This record gives sequence, structure tokens and C-alpha cells, in this order.
Amino acid sequence: MTVVRLIPAGDGFDLMAGDALLLHHRPASPALFVGTGTADVDAYRGNYVLSDRLDARIPLTHSTIDSTPAGAVIWLAASAGTPPLLRIAVDDAGLALTALDPALNRFWLRCVAEPGERLWGGGEQLSYFDMAGRRFPLWTSEPGVGRDKSTQMTFQCDRDGRSGGDYWNTNYPQPTYVSSRRYALHLDTTAYSCFDFRDPAFHELEAWEVPARIELFAADRFAAIVGQLSTRFGRQPRLPAWSYEGAILGLKQGVESFARMEAMIAAGAVVSGLWCEDWVGLRVTSFGKRLFWDWKANETRYPHLREWIAALADRGIRFLGYVNPYLAIDGSLYGEARAAGYLALRQDADEPYIVDFGEFDCGVVDFTNPAAADWFADRVIGREMLDYGLSGWMADFGEYLPTDVRLHDGTDGMLAHNAWPTIWAEVNARAIASRDRTGDALFFMRAGFTGVGAHCPLLWAGDQCVDFSRHDGIGTVIRAALSSGMMGNAYHHSDLGGYTSLYGNVRTPELLMRWSELCAFTPVMRSHEGNRPDDNLQLDGDPTVLAHFAAMTRVHAALASYVATLCDEAAKTGLPVQRPLMLDWQDDPDCWGIETQYGYGRDMIVAPVIEPDRDRWTAYLPAGATWVHLWSGTQHDGGRTVEVDAPPGRPPVFWRAGSPHAGLFAAIGDMA
Amino acid sequence: MTVVRLIPAGDGFDLMAGDALLLHHRPASPALFVGTGTADVDAYRGNYVLSDRLDARIPLTHSTIDSTPAGAVIWLAASAGTPPLLRIAVDDAGLALTALDPALNRFWLRCVAEPGERLWGGGEQLSYFDMAGRRFPLWTSEPGVGRDKSTQMTFQCDRDGRSGGDYWNTNYPQPTYVSSRRYALHLDTTAYSCFDFRDPAFHELEAWEVPARIELFAADRFAAIVGQLSTRFGRQPRLPAWSYEGAILGLKQGVESFARMEAMIAAGAVVSGLWCEDWVGLRVTSFGKRLFWDWKANETRYPHLREWIAALADRGIRFLGYVNPYLAIDGSLYGEARAAGYLALRQDADEPYIVDFGEFDCGVVDFTNPAAADWFADRVIGREMLDYGLSGWMADFGEYLPTDVRLHDGTDGMLAHNAWPTIWAEVNARAIASRDRTGDALFFMRAGFTGVGAHCPLLWAGDQCVDFSRHDGIGTVIRAALSSGMMGNAYHHSDLGGYTSLYGNVRTPELLMRWSELCAFTPVMRSHEGNRPDDNLQLDGDPTVLAHFAAMTRVHAALASYVATLCDEAAKTGLPVQRPLMLDWQDDPDCWGIETQYGYGRDMIVAPVIEPDRDRWTAYLPAGATWVHLWSGTQHDGGRTVEVDAPPGRPPVFWRAGSPHAGLFAAIGDMA
Repeated sequence: MTVVRLIPAGDGFDLMAGDALLLHHRPASPALFVGTGTADVDAYRGNYVLSDRLDARIPLTHSTIDSTPAGAVIWLAASAGTPPLLRIAVDDAGLALTALDPALNRFWLRCVAEPGERLWGGGEQLSYFDMAGRRFPLWTSEPGVGRDKSTQMTFQCDRDGRSGGDYWNTNYPQPTYVSSRRYALHLDTTAYSCFDFRDPAFHELEAWEVPARIELFAADRFAAIVGQLSTRFGRQPRLPAWSYEGAILGLKQGVESFARMEAMIAAGAVVSGLWCEDWVGLRVTSFGKRLFWDWKANETRYPHLREWIAALADRGIRFLGYVNPYLAIDGSLYGEARAAGYLALRQDADEPYIVDFGEFDCGVVDFTNPAAADWFADRVIGREMLDYGLSGWMADFGEYLPTDVRLHDGTDGMLAHNAWPTIWAEVNARAIASRDRTGDALFFMRAGFTGVGAHCPLLWAGDQCVDFSRHDGIGTVIRAALSSGMMGNAYHHSDLGGYTSLYGNVRTPELLMRWSELCAFTPVMRSHEGNRPDDNLQLDGDPTVLAHFAAMTRVHAALASYVATLCDEAAKTGLPVQRPLMLDWQDDPDCWGIETQYGYGRDMIVAPVIEPDRDRWTAYLPAGATWVHLWSGTQHDGGRTVEVDAPPGRPPVFWRAGSPHAGLFAAIGDMA
Repeated sequence: MTVVRLIPAGDGFDLMAGDALLLHHRPASPALFVGTGTADVDAYRGNYVLSDRLDARIPLTHSTIDSTPAGAVIWLAASAGTPPLLRIAVDDAGLALTALDPALNRFWLRCVAEPGERLWGGGEQLSYFDMAGRRFPLWTSEPGVGRDKSTQMTFQCDRDGRSGGDYWNTNYPQPTYVSSRRYALHLDTTAYSCFDFRDPAFHELEAWEVPARIELFAADRFAAIVGQLSTRFGRQPRLPAWSYEGAILGLKQGVESFARMEAMIAAGAVVSGLWCEDWVGLRVTSFGKRLFWDWKANETRYPHLREWIAALADRGIRFLGYVNPYLAIDGSLYGEARAAGYLALRQDADEPYIVDFGEFDCGVVDFTNPAAADWFADRVIGREMLDYGLSGWMADFGEYLPTDVRLHDGTDGMLAHNAWPTIWAEVNARAIASRDRTGDALFFMRAGFTGVGAHCPLLWAGDQCVDFSRHDGIGTVIRAALSSGMMGNAYHHSDLGGYTSLYGNVRTPELLMRWSELCAFTPVMRSHEGNRPDDNLQLDGDPTVLAHFAAMTRVHAALASYVATLCDEAAKTGLPVQRPLMLDWQDDPDCWGIETQYGYGRDMIVAPVIEPDRDRWTAYLPAGATWVHLWSGTQHDGGRTVEVDAPPGRPPVFWRAGSPHAGLFAAIGDMA
């Protein structure tokens, strides 16, 4: 399919993205605008309020088109007789933009909207998979706690820490969308941007610089578009088999963690990894027990840790830790980094820029300095983590780069902020490559931006509340998987049990069981004790919950050979393992709007129970196949909504009759 | 003082307002911008969320100046060689603006800001008297309940009814400010506007049309500027003496109200009016007991009301009622108005536009139809109210005009919305004039806009919460008096006891006593039973509270002769009766920032206790006088902050030694 087609039209032009009319530019209804403004940034512990002091917004009503050997060039001006302000070179893959006045730092694009159009992507979106009708600022940040201005939780978090968030807040934004009109658009910029899908007549895309390119993708099949995006933004290496052959237990009770793991194995859990984020030691704050941000083993909390790790390895159990790109000022690495000049500086002094992370302060390693990035990859992650014996870690944060920081390479903080998660991913990937462990050692990130998938092998959905709430509970991890999958990220998972427990909101047995069920059908099944382990029920704190979890780990492990084929497919095509139903069942339009189910590959439909007090659940099954209910074996024709029994232990899962994996699925159904 | 002075400067110009540099217009830093946009209006029961879909914002960087016999004319364009977009004729009192492209519907003006500059006005502002550092949208609406996003009350109201509000919400906005740089600026427009005082370098004034004029005022003395504004926007008639010679009791218990009034008189209260808003009958909703919006006496609830009114009149007690500009569809006047074609219509049908007022629906009388306005003034207010015997009323509402209404004279609802309160005031004033009762019959309004003072004799501060909260409690009525006073409104008062009781927030004895103290030192002392009388303590519900109230009515009545002189002064100069300290004490800059005290005329300083649990209170006393504490007689030099005993019954009030009213004040101090 020809992706980009320019059609001159008298005093304007049309631009096609595949078969879709994307731009309809006329003097009275221009599609392009440039301007100038000054950003107001109000930041507090990873939460940002950005606003614009706008000076000018100039509709580029006057256009002329030159034909050149390299293709068409469009010159755009405010009016006839005034100098052009924007040059656009049209090529097969999009538009290359050049601002002709260096003062221009605002850009708006109006794309044609159609009634009923669906819009997917925007990075990893937690509240809405279909973005139609809403506005999505794209700026990496804390995702918010509550994320819904009508909830008491959000109110309290906004009041006490400005941290309540809203539906669009995300750790991983990306200025890319896929339209149901069978095209995708990407703004090539790391500036703050905003996708506004509220107007029935147009989508307005805003960026706080003139993007270098507007990249376009088109294909008849959505799956092909996702494949193109995966190729463009980076395709992950296959997941290591150990990561999906059993559960990864998240425990952080010092050496007690080992005994608790043994008890869970004794209860029947299949365990392939032990994740102790407290391997660096603890710091107690009002938010909960937090980690000591000096990235080396704490052998006071974990005596003989090297030996423990070796003993686990002998049993095929990997040990995982935790790291992030900041250094606590009271840790030893901070002093090393400061002495070497590896820290980002303040604008007003040759002093490290100190960031408040909530009752403790940190320096920011300046990854724009190649020596600093090398130091972090080799000296910190390489020597202190991989060489020590770790097989993986949570590579946390990446969203907090201050916009008023002074960086080694001179990049403006407003442009570096969104780029940081991808740079942070690259440092982690480079460390792993330096020890030749790519495809074996595994790190996972919540932060992201354009290109994160080229480096980060596995996303995690960030910090959900320990509840069933609409915008911050268990259900949000499904939308996160669907939206990030549309960007070409093949692998996604979540904190089993959720993370954030505040204001008396604590885990229930039911929540832990429902989350275990969900995670059993994601490629990595990793538990988390949450921010306040002592106040919350843990998987091993209730025999029923533990038995249920153990059963789900067995289901998860039994799916390993199927997941291996999904990893193969992902490596080949870029299709995500958890995927929107319409990628495989595009011809059934009833699939397009489904946000709370996913295909686990083409042969399995997962519809997790994400509400409390439910013994039955409904699921939509795509037309064009017959579907077998995993637990009862009952067959259902596709193209309809079915209701099934779904007590704890029986997550609503269906497999495609005729699947080459039918035998495996049937056997799993019999495991109950 | 020359108010307006244009100083051409090469490729731009400066404009002086008095001695202050107001505009510094240069190609690289233009002061004027025009543009186009489309308003998004989300309205719900008087609460509005307005946002702009901006198409263009054009800095008018190119200017040329013509000298004409009538004065200078400035032609402004986007750039040299493009047609001018704005014509400005400069005269002695400001700038007359003409948009030269009819599509232009957005306007921005950047005025020079100075460090430490204070900015007062914006109509009646409840949260901040000094607007420096904040942004103030100017759109008449419900003021919000809570008005502070950090409070539980605001959260609940936002969640349940979108009614929480914010610091800038007000019934009475006005696009006018007074600068401490000794000038005032007014935008002559009824469009939505916004004053943004956040930038240290400039004030940005926005309007959703090109205003007809930018009016400027300047004088060395702030009091003179206020006088100019009062002349411009309308000077009230003197208050009728009866309105300040005793308290006006707000009771709404049908005929039981008369007996309760007698009991309060028997307890020692001085009463000059009885205000029964339920004179029209009741309607019970979830918000509380509301009134039946069909503006005629309900002789079921008030049998023999005419005779009652006559009997009260014989004792010098006036009877007051209630009216607003809407007609309940289940009332008789609605049918009359509808049949006559006096109701505003829908855009999409020749049917009355129906507004939801919270569990009941109303039509909107279309005052742009002169016949409808005459009908309401003569048939409704004239015949049903004045002729029936009423001497006054609350003229409620005025803020709810839908923006998508179809009006008789064709005015766009977006431009009519802000104009409506002033039009509504005019209808009331005309009714009173038609019965030759101007200066005798009295109505009071919470809604307002530019020019409301020309018609409305008395403002009231709207619906406070029944508490001491910072943004919605008793203290807000002081800021409301100060800010509206700066606009030239001489007379202000509040609901004694507050109005809104929701979510278990109820009046305390202390609140009633502190509010009685405050109201004793305002020109009109009017009590209100609130939205939920049965759930709340009333003045006659507690012997201590009643005795305290009665004592305060005696203080209030004793002040009548002093208030009469303040009314004389207001009529002559436009100075408000309750006034910012700096109007009389401008040479003491420590007075300029005071927001919780007021001068009651020049000779009295009132510093009401507006926090709970206080037995002592501090007050600032202006330099240049000696001040006598009303209750103790202790003398204090001015120019300092003093702390005094302030138990209930002893509101912190000081009078100026040497005042011609010293004898009266001393006698009042001895009344205790």
C-alpha cells in the first residue's frame, strides 16, 4: 500500500495516509499551525502540572508546493506575501518538517476525524484503550494514585501529595496513535505533546517544538500496522524461558524471604525466580518501607547473599533485584558519581541537582554524558548486579528528570524529560549486553517513551492501587497491555496483588486471587508485596489464597510451551503476546471496542474477572471461530457474548477449537 | 491628571495610564493579540466549565500611528505588508477598538506588571482581595461550595453536583481592576474574559470578543479612582433608613414566622424588617427546602398576608420577599409568559428553553424583549409584590442564562450570559421606580456584572458555607465587600449565619454569634435560616445566641446615625461604606495588603473574628491616627498591630480619636 500521497488542490492540499484522508489543508481550514510559547512547569515528586503561556498560534493558511527530484516540498506561510514559516518535505514514509524561524516552539496539526473512528495507543494508557473523545497529554510522570477525580482516594492523594493523577497520566506516554481508519501516525519529538481527540471534525495534535518528522504507517490489517510500529520502535528479544516457566516471587523480608519462598514451593507453587527488591536494604518513610538507593547488595539485610543466589541457581531459580537511575546522597555510589562529574547539575551552580523522592534526596546520573552512562552500565549494573549473580531486576523510575536540570550534552530539560526512560532502558540493555546476557538476564520497566521497546524486554504496568477501582485497580493492567501492545511492545505484566496501599485501602483475599488468575495468563507472573507489606495480606498469609496462587502458578507453568510460540511470533512479527482482539479478528467489528479482554495469542481469549463479588462473568468471543471454555470444555460459537461460571480458581478463559495447542489447553482445563 | 498618553516609539509605542506605563508595544514584545476560537461550554446547574478551542492567536507586531483631529489612531497588523487587523482610536479616557476582520473573536492585552504591584477588583471576589499572582476567569456563575480543592466539602460537591467551585468563581465578576500603580482598567465587553496576573512581567487580559473599549482611570489617590469607577458604573441611591435602623429577620416558617419574630423582639432585638422568602410557598428537594418559583403570595402558607403586612407596617416593620428571573413550569406565571411569547427559546425549536434548577424545571423570561421585561417589572414585581405590600426582596440568581439560548433581540448567549445580572437588576429597579418607591423599597442581589450598581441598591455576598472555612466561610464576605467596593458598589451585606449546610456541616452557636457581630457593622443586618433550617441551629434556638444577637441588633441600630453619614458620603463620592483601609489611609502602605478588616467609613476599623475558638484577636490600625478600642476605651497609636480581648459580644472594633462621632461611639462602647 502507498502510505503517503499528496494531492495538490488549488490553494491548499490533501494528504492521504494509506486510504484515509489525513490532512485537508485549505486557507479557511488550515491543518497546520506554528507558534511560540513559554512552558510553566510545576513539579512535585514525579507529578507535573504543565501549562503554556502562549504568545502566538499562527494558522499557516498560505501554501505553495514545489516538485523536486526527491519529492514534493510544501512551503507554508501565515499569508501570501509573508515569508514561509514551515517547510515540509513529503516522502514515502511521512513528512519531514523544518521550522524556518528559530523562535517557533509550538506546533499543531489537525487531522481529519471521522464519526465512529477509534484511536489506540498513546504509549501505555491505563484508563482508556480507545482514546476517542478525550484529550491525552503525553509526558512521562507518576501515573497518579486513584486517577479519577470523583474518588476519595484521588482526592486524598491530590490533597496530601499532589499525587492523585488523572485518566491520562502514565509512566509511558508516546506520541503515536493507530486509527481504526487503518493508519498510524507518530510525531518524532521528545517534547511535551498532547493528542486531543475531542472534536468530532478533527484530531488536534500539539507539540512544544516543531517535530522533526510526522511518520505515517498504513496497511489493510491492524496487525500489519502493529508490525510496522514494532519494526520502527524496536522489537524485543525473546523472553528468556525461565521468566515464563514459573512464577517470580516478590518478597522483601531480608533473609526471611528464602524461607517464605520454600514454604510457597512446599504449598505447590512453581517458582522460577525470587525477586527481592530489598537486596539493597531499606529506608522507612511515611509512604511505607522504601529501598536504600545505593545499588549494591546489602549483606547486613542479606548475609551470604552470593551463596544464596548460587544455591538457588542450582535449583533453576533465578534471583532478581532492583535499581533505578538515581543515587541517594547518603549512599556510597553518589560520592563516586559526584567526584567523577557524572551527575546532572543545577542551572545556577556547579552542584548536583538534588531531587526529593519523598523524605530522601538523590542525585541524577547524567546519561547524556557517555562516561556516566558507561559507568552506570558497567560499574553499577554490571559489577554490582550482574557480576554479583543477579539475573534480572526492576529498572524503576525514569519519569522524574527535572526540566530545569543542566545536562552534559546541553539538551534542554524540557526535551530530555520524555527521552529519559528510553535512555535509561538503553543503559540497562547495554549493561546486560556487556556481560553477554541478552535474552537471559531480564529487566522490566514501568517508564517508557518512543523507542523504549528497542531496549527494554518487558514492561510492567506500574503501581496500581490494591483494589478493583476503575482507573487504578486490577483492570487497568489490561488496558495497559493492550495500548502498549499496539505500539509494538510484545511483553507486558503487572504487580500481582497491586502496589499502592494508602488511607486504609488494603488487599482482600479476593483481590489477590483475581490478580493471580490474571497474571497466570500473562507472560511473566510476578508477585509484589506492595508499598506496605505489613499492613496487607500476602499470598502466603492465608491458606486459601496460597493454594489458589499455587494452582495458578501451575497453570502458568503449563502454558510455557504455548507462550514460547507466542514469543517466536512476537520476534518474527512484532505482535504482542497479550493483544487486542481486533488484531486477530479484525473482520468482526464487535471486537474493536473491547478493552477488558485480550487475545493471549490468536488461540486463547482471556477475560479476567476485574470486579469484586462476582461468581459469573461475561465475555465476548470473536466471530469466525468456535471457542472452548477452558474449565468446562463447553463450546461456544463466536460472534456473541457468553456468560460463564467464574468462581475463584476458574478465570474466564476460552481457546479456539482447532488450535494446534488444543491438547495442551484441554490438559490445563483438566488440572483443576 | 492626564489619564491616557500615547508615546510613539519607532516601530512601536508606549501608552501611559496616568503616571503608570501600561502598554509597551514593540515588534518583539507585542502588547496586543487577536485571534479566533470556538468556546466549549459545559454547564450544569449554574456551574460552568469553559474551554477554548483556539484556532489562531496573532501577535499584532506591526503598528502604524495616524494623527487625526480626533486624536491618534493606531493600526495594527500581523506583519508589514499584511492588512491591519485592529484599529485603535486613542482618546482621553481610553482606547476604542475596532476589529477589521469580522472573524476575529479573541483578544489579548498584555499590560506592564511591576514587582510588588497589587491588583484589586474583578467584581466581587470572595477568596482573594489582592489578585496578584493568580488567574481570574470572569464569568457569572454559582460561586461554588467549598471553593478549595483541598477540602472534603469541595470534593464532595464536585463529585456529586460539579458544584465545588474554585477561588475565582463568583456570582459577580467584572472585567475591571485597580492597580496599586494608581490606575484602573476596564474592558468594555460582556464576553467571557480572564485576567491573568501570574506572570511577573505582564498582566494578560483575555476576552472572547474584541472589546469595544479599554477604559482607563487614574488618580493619585485610590479613593479618587474608586469615585471615578462609581461614576462610570453607577452610583447607588442612598439606602432607605429603615434598612439600617434595625435588623431584618430572615424567617421562613409560614405564619409561624410572625410569632418567632415577636419572641425575638421580646428578647431585645431591634427589628426593622421581616424577610420571608417562603412567601411564595415551598418545594422540597434533596438540597433542602426550596421556594416555589411562581412569584405571588402563597396565602395557604401565609393566610391573611396582606393584613399581616399592614399590621407590621403600623409598627415600622417592613415585609420583604423573594423573586428571581425564572418561572417554574408548574406555576401560573409560566403559562402567562409562555402564551405571551415572553420566554427565551431553544435554538432548535420554537419552544421555551427549559433550565434544570435541581429537581425542578423553569423557563427563562427573555428580558431582551422589552415587552417581557415590562411584563415582569409591572405585572410580576409591580403587581404581585410592591402593590401587595412588599418593601423589599432578595432578587436572586441571574447567573444561569444558558449560552445556547435563543433571545428576542438576537444577542448571542455567550455575550448575553454575563450581561444578564445587570439586565435583571434593571428590571427590578424599573419596577420600583414604576411605583415611585426608589430609595424606599429595597432589593438585594448576589449576581452582578459591569453596571449592576446603577440599578441594584445593595449587594449580598451569596451563599457561604455555615462555617469558618477559608474560601467559603464567614471571612469571605469581608473580601467580597472590599472587592465589590473597589468597583464603586457602596453597599454590601451577607447572610447572617451563612447559607449552605451540606454533608453534615451545620451551624455552631459560635458561628452565629461571630456572624451577628460582623453584620452589626455592615449597613444591612439580615439573618438567614439557610438551606436546611431544620438541621441547623437558628438565632432563636439557643438563649445565649439569641441574647447575643439581640445585643448586636442594638449596636447596629445605635450606629444608624453614623451609617446615615456614610450613605451621604457614598452618594456624594462613591466611596463604599465598608472599605479597604487604603482608601482612607493610602499613605500607610501597611494598609494596602489587609484583606480581613475594613474601614466602616473613615472613623471606624472593624476586624471581625473569623476563626473559631478565639478569645483574642489581632488587628492592624492605620498610621496617622489614634484608635480607641470600642469596648475597653483603650487608646492605641496607629501604624501597628494590636491584640485585644474578643470574646463573643466584643467584636474587635476601633474608632478614630477625634472623630465627630466620638460621643456616639463611646456610648455604644458603654452599651455592653
